[in-house]
Amino acid sequence: MDTIDTLICARWVIPIEPVGRVLEQHAVAIKGGRIAAIGPTEELARTVRATTVIERPNHVLLPGFVNAHTHAAMTLLRGAAESASFERWLQTQAWPLEQRWIDAEYVRDGTELAIADMLTSGTTCFGDMHLFPEIVAQTAAHAHMRACIGLPVVERATSWAESAGECLEKGLRLHDEYREDPLITTSLSPYATWALGDETLIRVRRAADELELPMTMHVNETPEDALSGEERTIARLERLGLLSPLLTAVHMVHVDDADIEACAQAGVSIVHCPQSNLKLGNGVAPVARFKTRDINVALGTDGAASNNDLSMLDEVRTAALLARGFHSAHVGIEAHEWLRFATLNGARALGLGEVIGSLTPGKWADMCCLDLARVHTQPVYDVAAHIVFAASRDQVSDVWVAGRALVSESRLTRLDEADLLARAERWRARITDTRNS
Amino acid sequence: MDTIDTLICARWVIPIEPVGRVLEQHAVAIKGGRIAAIGPTEELARTVRATTVIERPNHVLLPGFVNAHTHAAMTLLRGAAESASFERWLQTQAWPLEQRWIDAEYVRDGTELAIADMLTSGTTCFGDMHLFPEIVAQTAAHAHMRACIGLPVVERATSWAESAGECLEKGLRLHDEYREDPLITTSLSPYATWALGDETLIRVRRAADELELPMTMHVNETPEDALSGEERTIARLERLGLLSPLLTAVHMVHVDDADIEACAQAGVSIVHCPQSNLKLGNGVAPVARFKTRDINVALGTDGAASNNDLSMLDEVRTAALLARGFHSAHVGIEAHEWLRFATLNGARALGLGEVIGSLTPGKWADMCCLDLARVHTQPVYDVAAHIVFAASRDQVSDVWVAGRALVSESRLTRLDEADLLARAERWRARITDTRNS
Repeated sequence: MDTIDTLICARWVIPIEPVGRVLEQHAVAIKGGRIAAIGPTEELARTVRATTVIERPNHVLLPGFVNAHTHAAMTLLRGAAESASFERWLQTQAWPLEQRWIDAEYVRDGTELAIADMLTSGTTCFGDMHLFPEIVAQTAAHAHMRACIGLPVVERATSWAESAGECLEKGLRLHDEYREDPLITTSLSPYATWALGDETLIRVRRAADELELPMTMHVNETPEDALSGEERTIARLERLGLLSPLLTAVHMVHVDDADIEACAQAGVSIVHCPQSNLKLGNGVAPVARFKTRDINVALGTDGAASNNDLSMLDEVRTAALLARGFHSAHVGIEAHEWLRFATLNGARALGLGEVIGSLTPGKWADMCCLDLARVHTQPVYDVAAHIVFAASRDQVSDVWVAGRALVSESRLTRLDEADLLARAERWRARITDTRNS
Repeated sequence: MDTIDTLICARWVIPIEPVGRVLEQHAVAIKGGRIAAIGPTEELARTVRATTVIERPNHVLLPGFVNAHTHAAMTLLRGAAESASFERWLQTQAWPLEQRWIDAEYVRDGTELAIADMLTSGTTCFGDMHLFPEIVAQTAAHAHMRACIGLPVVERATSWAESAGECLEKGLRLHDEYREDPLITTSLSPYATWALGDETLIRVRRAADELELPMTMHVNETPEDALSGEERTIARLERLGLLSPLLTAVHMVHVDDADIEACAQAGVSIVHCPQSNLKLGNGVAPVARFKTRDINVALGTDGAASNNDLSMLDEVRTAALLARGFHSAHVGIEAHEWLRFATLNGARALGLGEVIGSLTPGKWADMCCLDLARVHTQPVYDVAAHIVFAASRDQVSDVWVAGRALVSESRLTRLDEADLLARAERWRARITDTRNS
C-alpha cells in the first residue's frame, strides 16, 4: 500500500486534460507536493495510506487558475483612478501615482494584497509585470504562491533602473537567482512595443533565445498600438525576430487577419484581458478568431487599477459572455474550454505547461476547490457551466500550491488578512494626502 | 426624543438620491418599516431612542437592488440548457423542459430558490414574469420579499390558462387580491410582441390604462423581434397605443434611432439584461444612446437559465464594463449612475419609484449593506466603484425589506437554505430522468 501525504475526495473532479471530462466521486492523491494519482475515491481509499484525508462532498476540484497577466502591486491603486479614457488613465493618473510612490515597500505590500486577492478566488499562479521584480519574487516565495516574475525592460529611467541595459542586467541576475526554485520562474517583460526601440527588442529576444526564457509584452492594446509608424506592429515584431513560441502577447485587441496569421504561424501565445480592455475603453479581442487558428489563448486580469479585482472567476465569466454575445453564440467555445483557457493555457503562456495547469500525475498539486452547495449554484446539471457562469469567489473553499494548503475553509492559512487590510489603509491615507495636496 | 425601531450605523451610506452622494459615518433610522431619518451617526444617536442599534463599521449601506426583470422559477433549470443559439435554447430546450414540468409546486420551489439567490446578493425587489403568478405572489409574500408580479398574457393554451382572455381574467383577479398589499404589486405582462395579436395587445393596453397598471413586455430582444411583418415593432406598439409611461420594454437590443426616439417621447422605461443578452448571443443594448435621450434604464438578470445566477452585482458590473468597452470609455455613465440604474430606475420601471429605490425618509426601508473589509475591496478610494467593479455577493452582510432583516451576517433569516437545496436537488433528479428518457 502506497503512503501519500494527502488524499482529497471530491464530489466532482475536472482534470482539464482531457478537456470536457467531469469525474464524479473521485480523489486526488498528493505526495511530495505533486499529484501522485487520480482515481475513484473508493478505489484510491483502498490502495493508498494517507496522512491526511480531506472530504469535500459538495465540491468540485480542479487545477488552480492561472492569471497569465497582472501587475500585482497595483492593488494599492484599486479604484484610485476611475477616469474615462485609457490615455488619460495611464498618463495622468495611474503612472503619476505609481511614480510618486513606487519603492520596495509599496511593491511588497501591493503584491501581498494581490496574492491574497488571487488565492481567495482560486488562483494558484500569476504572471506579473512590475518594477522591483525581486520584491515580487520574494513576496510570492514567502507566501508559497507560484509566480512567473516579469523582468521589466523599459527605456526610460525609473526608480528601479536607469536604462534598458540596467533593466536587463538586473533582470537576468534575478533569473539566475531563482533558477532552481520550485515556485518562482521568470519571463522577460519588455513593457510594450510602442515604448521600446528596435535595438532593445533585439537584445531582449537574444536573451530569451539564449536562456529559453518566455517573453511577455503588451501588444496591440489600443488602435494606435497596432501600428509602429508605417509598419504593422506585429510585422515589426516579426522583422525583429520576436514572434516565436517564447512570446506571450498580452491584449491583442486591435488585430487584422495578417496579424493573427503571423502569430499563429509563429506559435505565439495570447493573453486575453477582457475586463481591463472593456474598462479602459479598448474593446474586445477576437478570441473566436484566435481559436480558429489554434492559438494558445490564456486569460489575465491585468492590474487591479483597471479591473478592479483579481478574480479569475470574474474574468472567465466576462470572457465567455463576450464571446457568446458577439458571435451569435456560435463561437464553439464552451464552458469546459473556458476553464482550460483559465488554467492549462495560462500555464503554457508562462512556460509552465509541463508542470501545472491540469490534474495530471507528476504535475505539481496546484489546485482549487469550490463548494457548489449554495442557493445560486443549485441545482447542478452542468458543473463547468456553474463555475464559468454562476460561482462566486467565496465558494473557493480550498487552495493548494505544490500540495500546501494556502486557503482552507475559505480562509487564508499563511497570510494575515487583518494586517494586509491595515497596510492597504495606510497606503490609501498616504496616497490620498498626495492627491489632495 | 423620538423612539424608533432600528438604527443602522454605517461607515458609508449611498442614498442614491441625489446621485453621486456618499455620506460618511451616517445612520438610517427605521420606524414602522419605513425610513424615518438619515443623518450623521453622532447626531442621530443623540436624538433618537432605538430598540435595536446595528453597527456596520466597515460597510456601505444603500437601497436594495431592484431586479427589474426575471423569471424567478427558472432557477430550477439553471445550467440545464447550455446549448448555443437563442432560438434553439428557447424552442428546443427551455420551453420543452418548462412545459413538461411547470405546475404550482415547480413554480413555488423555483421562485423560493430565486428569492434566496436574490436576497443573498442584495436584491430586495424583483419584477417577475412567469406562469402561475398567484404562486409567485404567495411565495414572495411568505418570504417577506418585495415583488412586482407579472400577470402573464399569452395566446396559446398553457398549464395555467387556456387563452389570452383567461390569462387576463385570472391576472386581474390576482391584481385585485393584492391591491392593498404592502409588498406585492402587479404588472400586466404580455409575453412578447411577436407572440401576441393586435387584439390582445389592445385589450392589455385598455386594462393597463383603466387600472393604471404597469405593463412589462419582451421587446426587440433579437433582430427578428425588431420587425412585425413590414412594420417596425416599436411602430406597431405605438400604433396600438402601448407606448406610454406605463410600458417597460425588456431587452431592446435591436433598435434604430426612430425606435429610441419613439420610446423617449412616450416615456417608456427600458430594462437592460446584459448577461442574458450576451449569453444567448443577442448582442448588447445601446444604453448610452438611451441615456442621451433621458430614457429611464433599469437592470434585470432575466431568468437563471440564461444568466446563470440572479446577482445584480454581477449584472451591474457587466453593464458598466460593456458600456465603457463599446463607447471608448466616454459614455458618461459612471459608477454612481450605474447604482441608480440598479436601484431607483428599477423601482421606477416597476411603478414603485415613489416608495422604494432610494434612502429617502418616508420610503420603505428596503436596503442592503456590503462589508468592504476584504482583500479584494481594499484600499477604498471610491466606494461606488468598488460596488460596481469589485465587490462579490458574499460581501452582502444584511438585507432589509420594509425594515425586516431577511439577511443578517450573510445568512438568510427566514428561508431554510438546506431545505431549498434539497428541493432543488429533487427537481434536478426528476428533470434529468425525463431528459435522459
